[in-house]
Amino acid sequence: MRIVDQLHEQAQALFDALRMGSLDHARGGVTRDTYGVGEDYAHTLLAKHATQLGLEVKHDHMRNTYMVLPGKDRHLPAIVIGSHLDSVAGGGNFDGAAGVVSGLIAVQALQQAGIQLPCDVVVMGVRAEESIWFQVSYIGSRGALGRLQPETLNALRIDTKRSLADHLTEAGGDPEAVKRGDAFLSPKNVRAFMEVHIEQAPSLALTGFPIAIGTGVPGNFRYPKIRIKGEYGHVGLGRRFRHDASLAGADLTLGLDAIWAEWERQGRLMACTVGEFHTNVERHGLTVVPGEFSMSLDVRAYAQPDLVELESAFLALVKEVEKKRGVMIDLGLRASAEVAQADPVLTQQLRGCAQDLSIACCDLPSPASHDAAAFCAAGIPFGFLFIRNPNGSHHPEEAMATEDFMLATDVLTRWLMTQQDT
Amino acid sequence: MRIVDQLHEQAQALFDALRMGSLDHARGGVTRDTYGVGEDYAHTLLAKHATQLGLEVKHDHMRNTYMVLPGKDRHLPAIVIGSHLDSVAGGGNFDGAAGVVSGLIAVQALQQAGIQLPCDVVVMGVRAEESIWFQVSYIGSRGALGRLQPETLNALRIDTKRSLADHLTEAGGDPEAVKRGDAFLSPKNVRAFMEVHIEQAPSLALTGFPIAIGTGVPGNFRYPKIRIKGEYGHVGLGRRFRHDASLAGADLTLGLDAIWAEWERQGRLMACTVGEFHTNVERHGLTVVPGEFSMSLDVRAYAQPDLVELESAFLALVKEVEKKRGVMIDLGLRASAEVAQADPVLTQQLRGCAQDLSIACCDLPSPASHDAAAFCAAGIPFGFLFIRNPNGSHHPEEAMATEDFMLATDVLTRWLMTQQDT
Repeated sequence: MRIVDQLHEQAQALFDALRMGSLDHARGGVTRDTYGVGEDYAHTLLAKHATQLGLEVKHDHMRNTYMVLPGKDRHLPAIVIGSHLDSVAGGGNFDGAAGVVSGLIAVQALQQAGIQLPCDVVVMGVRAEESIWFQVSYIGSRGALGRLQPETLNALRIDTKRSLADHLTEAGGDPEAVKRGDAFLSPKNVRAFMEVHIEQAPSLALTGFPIAIGTGVPGNFRYPKIRIKGEYGHVGLGRRFRHDASLAGADLTLGLDAIWAEWERQGRLMACTVGEFHTNVERHGLTVVPGEFSMSLDVRAYAQPDLVELESAFLALVKEVEKKRGVMIDLGLRASAEVAQADPVLTQQLRGCAQDLSIACCDLPSPASHDAAAFCAAGIPFGFLFIRNPNGSHHPEEAMATEDFMLATDVLTRWLMTQQDT
Repeated sequence: MRIVDQLHEQAQALFDALRMGSLDHARGGVTRDTYGVGEDYAHTLLAKHATQLGLEVKHDHMRNTYMVLPGKDRHLPAIVIGSHLDSVAGGGNFDGAAGVVSGLIAVQALQQAGIQLPCDVVVMGVRAEESIWFQVSYIGSRGALGRLQPETLNALRIDTKRSLADHLTEAGGDPEAVKRGDAFLSPKNVRAFMEVHIEQAPSLALTGFPIAIGTGVPGNFRYPKIRIKGEYGHVGLGRRFRHDASLAGADLTLGLDAIWAEWERQGRLMACTVGEFHTNVERHGLTVVPGEFSMSLDVRAYAQPDLVELESAFLALVKEVEKKRGVMIDLGLRASAEVAQADPVLTQQLRGCAQDLSIACCDLPSPASHDAAAFCAAGIPFGFLFIRNPNGSHHPEEAMATEDFMLATDVLTRWLMTQQDT
């Protein structure tokens, strides 16, 4: 028997309100910019809704939003349910936000059923998960956990060119607390982090499952600003005289793609994305051999040794291409995130809840990074639920049926209900 | 015995003045923008110098500049010596301009020697050769020859986004004459076109010859705005779900490079340049699979059948990549220019002049396109001289020793002197 069916329209209304307030008319889809107008809108909207539900609303130094259903014992470590409320520029409405709305719907279901858990249930709207804005992962959750590197405060938002410290201050947060390493959340006051998120790939749509239990979040290494320095030259320059930076970039990206194709053939999980890949628009031209080239790189895998293997293959490729094309490759900044495994006990409990509700689901390693990984790195166990999305994510065509969303929320709600005696 | 040695400082002064008036402080080098401030400056400067030499100065409907040393019979077909005065953005000082300065120095040497040829000797400052500005080749020379397609008047300059018709009118030219197909120059009033130009590749620097006799100008086919349409996707998307437009671009450029490598191995001459090669800077990002990609293509060769063979190989590659990556490739506009062979008689005469002067030189097929090709297409025979340039062209590091320039000018001057009895 389904638990949250009567809240279907409520969920739909919240999604519609989120969308309407963050439409991006230029790009299509929505833009909820990290520590900007779009993200602020989503936090304010959901905080207001939580207040109407009678939840306590508070914020930390990162200006994350906490919407709390008090437990019988306020001193017990809490259950935190959450995800992020920012989006990429011209992204979909559900990437991130679905997890916060799911928490709110689950809490409302508890309220309607008159259930008070022993501990607080905290719905968390996380800030700054989309690393496209500041080129850093999990800013909001790492900050809340006291694990954000203070130098990250100097990172510039790619569009405003203003620092994270500036943006954070403007949003009402406190950069000084980041410098001190203040932990608003820790294993002492959080016993589990539960995240619901749309899938960013269409694998559920293809296999027919509406939801899945997430088993782990990939780790990654990233080089956001690789610069290849060759030599500008005239269109008539002979091949042996060229130091074509674009061809070097093409060698790198196709070299990585060949590695991925081989891993895919062997059934090994990884992903490799070169999202930015471009000549210098100030200097390039039809009749100019490209003398410089820029590219970004994100490589992810589900086991730490896989990441080590991939990075060393990449670095070998860099040396090979430098030699082949007579170019210099400056890798620039490197960032990385550890692989995060979902808690086996929580995962097993979620599977059981789905089974109890006769909801078909499968296990799925996450294709993408998630705040849950930051909690895991801080020693807080996490459980994870995916919702089917046929169109992929980070673009306007992202899609989620509210029916599927309600199934994931049903599993989450049932799991909360099973926590009454713990 | 050298003829023009005493004009070394004169040549240097003209180059210095050209450079000082068109410095590009932002990019380095010079910018003499087609039908813009930079190009105007060069035309005005050299026309003023020609007036001081006592030459007649006039302009046509394209606002090309003609600086005329009258012959004994003003009705005989003239010898035209010239090259272009525009440059790429942040280009070198000599690409184009050296040919006009060479003509002026040669004419001055004739004046000083008291030589009047039977026909007019016309030094022509050509407009709009650099196709980077309007994405069309030989605008100034084709226009003068009555062979510029009228629709070219609608082409937009890439930076100003204003039409050629607008720019031409502003410079004092007449778009209506282009529409009528007026020919200011033709085989009836021009008996030969002589062009001196720096080499755009370092082959002379490597072989040790200061100058070369140009044997031909390559023909080309061009696709200035190829658009690849894939699908934007999330960084976690599996490989089999991706339609990565950048990878398709990389496949195309490396596929063409492989063809070139094979031709090089076989000793067949061609060149292939993908000068613009980029994701959409408005939408790309570290964590977004590229859904669109833009690139330009210029392929050149020295025989028409070679161009046909290369273009069909390219089109086959396009089909293959579309299938492999699940993308659509829109080739956009196509432009082309025919292969142009230098006149064998003029070429032999130039070789003879160099030999008479004991100037070491070799034959060289031009690596680049030149206005001479437009004269050739109109039925006017041409002769060509290259000057050594160790650093390649179309960037600030382009270099030419005035000594080498004087050697080419010596050959040109001697050739003019041999025309006294024709």
